[in-house]
Amino acid sequence: MKCLGLLPLVALWTPGLAQEPVDAALNARIRAEALERSQILATLHPLTDVFSPRLTGSPTYKAAADWAVDRFRDWGLEARLESWNFGHPGWANERCAAHVEAPYKAHLGVEVVAWTPSTRGTVRGEAYLLKVPEEPTQAELSALFEASRKAVRGRVVLAGAPRELPALNPSPRPPRLTDEALARRFDPAAPEPGPRPQPTRRAGALPAREAEAQLDAFLVASKALARVNDAGLRNGQVRAFQNRAYDTAKAVPTLVMRHEDYGRMCRVLADGPRVELALEIANRESKGGLGYNVIADIPGSTRPGEVILLGAHLDAWHTATGATDNGASAAVMMEVARIVKALGVQPARTLRFALWDGEEHGLLGSMAYVAAHYGTAEAPKPEFGQLVAYVNMDGGAGQVRGLTMFGPAQGSRVLRELLAPFQDLGVRGASATRNRPPKALTGPSTDMSSFTSSGLPAMGVVQDGLEYFEYTWHTAIDTLDRVPPEDVKRTAAVLASVALHLAQRPGRLPFFSKETLPPAPPEPAR
Amino acid sequence: MKCLGLLPLVALWTPGLAQEPVDAALNARIRAEALERSQILATLHPLTDVFSPRLTGSPTYKAAADWAVDRFRDWGLEARLESWNFGHPGWANERCAAHVEAPYKAHLGVEVVAWTPSTRGTVRGEAYLLKVPEEPTQAELSALFEASRKAVRGRVVLAGAPRELPALNPSPRPPRLTDEALARRFDPAAPEPGPRPQPTRRAGALPAREAEAQLDAFLVASKALARVNDAGLRNGQVRAFQNRAYDTAKAVPTLVMRHEDYGRMCRVLADGPRVELALEIANRESKGGLGYNVIADIPGSTRPGEVILLGAHLDAWHTATGATDNGASAAVMMEVARIVKALGVQPARTLRFALWDGEEHGLLGSMAYVAAHYGTAEAPKPEFGQLVAYVNMDGGAGQVRGLTMFGPAQGSRVLRELLAPFQDLGVRGASATRNRPPKALTGPSTDMSSFTSSGLPAMGVVQDGLEYFEYTWHTAIDTLDRVPPEDVKRTAAVLASVALHLAQRPGRLPFFSKETLPPAPPEPAR
Repeated sequence: MKCLGLLPLVALWTPGLAQEPVDAALNARIRAEALERSQILATLHPLTDVFSPRLTGSPTYKAAADWAVDRFRDWGLEARLESWNFGHPGWANERCAAHVEAPYKAHLGVEVVAWTPSTRGTVRGEAYLLKVPEEPTQAELSALFEASRKAVRGRVVLAGAPRELPALNPSPRPPRLTDEALARRFDPAAPEPGPRPQPTRRAGALPAREAEAQLDAFLVASKALARVNDAGLRNGQVRAFQNRAYDTAKAVPTLVMRHEDYGRMCRVLADGPRVELALEIANRESKGGLGYNVIADIPGSTRPGEVILLGAHLDAWHTATGATDNGASAAVMMEVARIVKALGVQPARTLRFALWDGEEHGLLGSMAYVAAHYGTAEAPKPEFGQLVAYVNMDGGAGQVRGLTMFGPAQGSRVLRELLAPFQDLGVRGASATRNRPPKALTGPSTDMSSFTSSGLPAMGVVQDGLEYFEYTWHTAIDTLDRVPPEDVKRTAAVLASVALHLAQRPGRLPFFSKETLPPAPPEPAR
Repeated sequence: MKCLGLLPLVALWTPGLAQEPVDAALNARIRAEALERSQILATLHPLTDVFSPRLTGSPTYKAAADWAVDRFRDWGLEARLESWNFGHPGWANERCAAHVEAPYKAHLGVEVVAWTPSTRGTVRGEAYLLKVPEEPTQAELSALFEASRKAVRGRVVLAGAPRELPALNPSPRPPRLTDEALARRFDPAAPEPGPRPQPTRRAGALPAREAEAQLDAFLVASKALARVNDAGLRNGQVRAFQNRAYDTAKAVPTLVMRHEDYGRMCRVLADGPRVELALEIANRESKGGLGYNVIADIPGSTRPGEVILLGAHLDAWHTATGATDNGASAAVMMEVARIVKALGVQPARTLRFALWDGEEHGLLGSMAYVAAHYGTAEAPKPEFGQLVAYVNMDGGAGQVRGLTMFGPAQGSRVLRELLAPFQDLGVRGASATRNRPPKALTGPSTDMSSFTSSGLPAMGVVQDGLEYFEYTWHTAIDTLDRVPPEDVKRTAAVLASVALHLAQRPGRLPFFSKETLPPAPPEPAR
């Protein structure tokens, strides 16, 4: 790779009206490299089509991580794997087929829940609808188990009535964020939104994970043949996650079935006849045990001990190839590294790239990295003060529309000014939040929280949703063809510019002082 | 069923401003029966969940037709099957599983093409991308066959490059027709739209069916293991139709694969490695031979020889349960019959209900019925003059928004006035067309054409599209839960009212005279 040497970039800043200097010449070069000579799709193809599934602990995840290390090195970065203790075996599905054999004939749209066991070849059994209440109490669950212990034996247990879904999507999301919504979101005078409201549960209800674990234990103890869950999603989509015990002995073979097939089966069962199923599930466990973060550096020239960290998780659910969650983001971050090296720019501060493992299992890889390198504001490790900014991406393949940072208003003002030259690409601004989440998150989250919960400076990419939440997020059709090339190219251009400007600017990106940093919130009950 | 006897309905007409008398009391009773005591879902459940697939010639179609006859009889109608010569065996898929075994592991979203053969248990072979050009000429196809005869032997042949689909749907359809669009469509002063433009084909291209037949013959002769087509649809949807030879000897085992899986496989193949597939397809042929239309009558009291015919096809593609195509419409027509009998109204003219078989194979059932009973305007049978109006429904489960009739402007004016009391339910009007299609249709069509091509009075229900064309039309997820109950209830109410008013009005619905009937157009080349 050609190296142009370090130009005195600071001298090229063109101040204009904004307070924050912006290097227009650098931005022009970044745009040309990102938009006209993009390599993102060439990066994304092996990550998704070849080295998938990328389930934490699996050999195919490790192969993807190894490939990423090699690629970073090809581009001239210092790259390595950093392992952490996952503590569970690897798991992969290798064969999965499900049929209704009577009273009608149909093959069924299903995916396997990870870390559940195989069937012994093709097994046959009668479907049994176990009417698990929504958010059961311990008393309800115990009564249900007592009443159905004999009935589930040798049966394929349908876990709960089909979800009520309207026949027509009542509120389809627009694929792009509107300028009006973004203007409100990025208005510096707008009040900060409060923390995301936690879903309320029925009084006396068992925690969801506890109810799930009890149901699985009941099905194992009662010798149920298999378990089937309603996917409960529109238009045939299926998401399958994991047996949270990560132990195939603690569950029966478990499928998630598309809502259309599950609903039909339940409606026929309600008429009275026996519904006979044939299932074949072959899974393979492997040694596993470790998770692997990919870490790659472009060392800073004059301030190598100050780090701009760009990260995205590389692991993915196993039912597809994790293209929009989160291969596209991993490929964007790799593309930022490639662009910086292709331009031959050596930044003043260190640019570090991180592809996290274990995000889908509770932000495990990024949590392990933060624990190992940074600690928390309250119990810092030596590197704690080195992190100038962490940039996280995990919102699908839609293009960047702005940034939202955990930090003070002065920080988001800097970001807004760095983003201003990208208005023509649809970028609209930045916002700041003082919301410091607890470490033990209960709802959907992303690796940014591993940093913000520790009191570290971090920002997330605000992205267009496209059809992410309806169709590709965690589903069995999350494949490369769902990544719009222009979207990811634009995002790479914008993040390369932001990263380089943050690495080059005379001062660090403004962050909270010890005095203004929001304190760690109490950890929620699980 | 209670019979109120025939009230002198004509005396109840309340003329108002409109020229066409409308029976408001009758409409109120129809609304109550249709909207508050609906049985549509109870009708649709067996038709879709229990007696499916409803592929023409199959035992499950016959079971659905027999059930419909019984149900009509339960309601007090004179019902029967009328058979016609389908000329092909019955066919059903009973088992279908497809996996990539190397270099990656994945189970694949596939459906089987009807009237293609089974595999011998699970068979294994390497994928081979046969680069069939779009719309090939004979020379191109022959050259392709010559060059790939050896390569396809024992292989799973992927028939053509993956379709280019944008990652984001560029023009999602709104689920409901707008009032503005309907006002334009039903404006009596609007010029009539011309006949639907025929798709243009590349110069010198073989007709699509001929190219398909040659490809199938080549694969059989070359001993290919199986054939796989790209579904080419968004969001994992799959449509599988038939081998048009209706002869399992004339094709290899053939699957349609969801675009996401097909695309991944082709991208990996392009890298060079062998892609190993395992396929298991078990189909069952049955005697077949006959198609069965369901015909049910409510005989007219004073003008039994004048017929209002309401029809919808009952047959469906085999990959799902044909709920929106066209079970919902069949259930609506059955519900109209139930409502009329429940109200105890005996109409002056005969109300006849027809559930057609073979629509998906070229309007075969309705064509056979028209040929047997009516003939054409140019070669009429004795019943030709008896048909006052045919009402067809085949546009998914979306509610009625109006009617479009093959007939003169005076006819659509009558319909507009009969529909006016249903403005509050979203009904907006009616239009007339002079477009008489050829009998040999080349594009998408419906049973209405069997009537209009013969010069018979017919109308179609204009419906909201909902998500029909994107998701449920001919796909593997066309199940009962995609039918919005309020939509089909409203349609049944409106069609019951229109049918009864047409049956009771003093004069026949205005139609073309012999002199004004558009002549039969020339038949297109196939």
